[in-house]
Amino acid sequence: MSLSPSPLEKRFISALQVAELAGVSRSAVSRTFTAGASVSPRTRAKVLAAAQQLGYQVNHLARCLHDTSRIVSLITTDISTPFQASFLDQLTRALQQIDKVAMVINTKGDASSVAAALSQTLSFRAEASIILSGQPQKELIDKCLTNGQRVILVNRDYDHPHAENIRIDNEGTARSALAILQRQGCQRVAVVTSDVGSVGLEARERGFVAAAQAAGLEMEVLRYGDTSYASGVTMAASLRQMPDGVFCVTDLLACGFLDEVRRRGIRVPEDLVLIGFDDIEQARWHAYQLTTFRQPQQQMVQHIIARLQASFGAFSNDYTCPLEPVWRGTTR
Amino acid sequence: MSLSPSPLEKRFISALQVAELAGVSRSAVSRTFTAGASVSPRTRAKVLAAAQQLGYQVNHLARCLHDTSRIVSLITTDISTPFQASFLDQLTRALQQIDKVAMVINTKGDASSVAAALSQTLSFRAEASIILSGQPQKELIDKCLTNGQRVILVNRDYDHPHAENIRIDNEGTARSALAILQRQGCQRVAVVTSDVGSVGLEARERGFVAAAQAAGLEMEVLRYGDTSYASGVTMAASLRQMPDGVFCVTDLLACGFLDEVRRRGIRVPEDLVLIGFDDIEQARWHAYQLTTFRQPQQQMVQHIIARLQASFGAFSNDYTCPLEPVWRGTTR
Repeated sequence: MSLSPSPLEKRFISALQVAELAGVSRSAVSRTFTAGASVSPRTRAKVLAAAQQLGYQVNHLARCLHDTSRIVSLITTDISTPFQASFLDQLTRALQQIDKVAMVINTKGDASSVAAALSQTLSFRAEASIILSGQPQKELIDKCLTNGQRVILVNRDYDHPHAENIRIDNEGTARSALAILQRQGCQRVAVVTSDVGSVGLEARERGFVAAAQAAGLEMEVLRYGDTSYASGVTMAASLRQMPDGVFCVTDLLACGFLDEVRRRGIRVPEDLVLIGFDDIEQARWHAYQLTTFRQPQQQMVQHIIARLQASFGAFSNDYTCPLEPVWRGTTR
Repeated sequence: MSLSPSPLEKRFISALQVAELAGVSRSAVSRTFTAGASVSPRTRAKVLAAAQQLGYQVNHLARCLHDTSRIVSLITTDISTPFQASFLDQLTRALQQIDKVAMVINTKGDASSVAAALSQTLSFRAEASIILSGQPQKELIDKCLTNGQRVILVNRDYDHPHAENIRIDNEGTARSALAILQRQGCQRVAVVTSDVGSVGLEARERGFVAAAQAAGLEMEVLRYGDTSYASGVTMAASLRQMPDGVFCVTDLLACGFLDEVRRRGIRVPEDLVLIGFDDIEQARWHAYQLTTFRQPQQQMVQHIIARLQASFGAFSNDYTCPLEPVWRGTTR
């Protein structure tokens, strides 16, 4: 195969070029590359030889005009956090196994960009959009659905008659966290969260606060910065009176909080009981051994895949994933 | 906007439907949505009103048949590791800023799948493929280039006349790691690596081993499992005679190694000096404070973007990123 010095000036090899080299019709090339289409063995062999010689690749985009695109868009942010990265890893692989391909749209740093992202997925004729972050407007979801695009929302708390929700029980899990702290004898509890104000984080805070109030416990809400390790450190460093039971709304916050309270000489779990949320990889690391609630990513991915493979309406629109506590070293 | 009960049975709204509703020609719709094309203000207004009413979205795929696709494929693996996740985060955002969209192909768990992935990118008419993992065959890169697709290899150590390489100096950096251990007075050194056998990891091992031999130091190669935190723990646990200077070929291995040697009561850096590679977020966490070499991800991403925006040949095919040591608590 010879290469010109400037391959970028080249165009994709066309079916017509293949047809000319093979001495067959354009239609014969098309039929050769269409499953189940009729083409003689002799013609087929000529076409395949010419395609091989030229380096021809079937134009999937051209097919999309008449067929499904196989593209599934993933609208996400915080790709670099352990939780999202792991979810993206599992989801992209699972999509490939059912012959789809993932278009990743990163909405980080731009609150209005979920809208732009969804419009983008329409212009690429994505079969489905899976929204892992952000809160798109109802009108935009309508537009996707009107165009036959499936919309699956993960932990978004969104009510729409035709969008599908994979929910997690944020409030209930936060209440369970408070119940654990209470059983372990904690008297002064705190919930550690960020300034981000996402639906999921707010529900966790709300559930914890309501349960603490119902239990009549002394309670404090610590809210600061982004949902990061560094914010956890900052909040632990800022505490004057130390609580004896803490629920962090994500494991990343919990890792930072734990490192800083230990640096201040507080023993965990003897002086302070700590519970996280997510079960990221680092929660298992020796330095943390964090008791947390596991988001069942594999199960969530399986539910998304099952929905993509089934016809619309085959499932209830809503599915709520159960979360289980994972007991490690930060509880007694 | 009304929705039928079963949106998935719908097709994308077509330009013809818009034309019919607006009472204009199909061509007028096309011209309305083509930058610079001639269309009267009156016709344009009618088309836009009809498009809005129907929820029409320009078919980008149809445009791709005659124009560039804007798709850039990222062929990657280990998305869930901190290093790759952070790189993917930065790269997807940078691509969007130049109006491209990322198609992520996850080759995890399948060594031959890089080939399948590259064929896939051709069928989607991706403008470029950025290969972040795996080692595709030369023939396949040829095929991409022949079809006008740009191929950029990141840390792949690949010699091809037209593929572009963003390299990092694996061997030289590993030699620098040995030099640091030597300056800190280490006598018995070890390099900690995995069984994965990637080009980058092998070069780091090779550079360290050669430098240790040249320096006449007692030296051991520890090689086990995948390139993970858990493998680092296992290797540290298996040591009978403890070295006094260790170079881990990734920070993830180093975090595991560090946690386990500390658990065994070895003081770092007093008894053992430890150096990593990558500068992942966790290297900065209080529990690790790992001295390491930073891969300049932002700079690597900028180089990729600059190449995508420039014409082919505007840059030398090869660019080698410099790596700088980041001094933290695991060196003296």
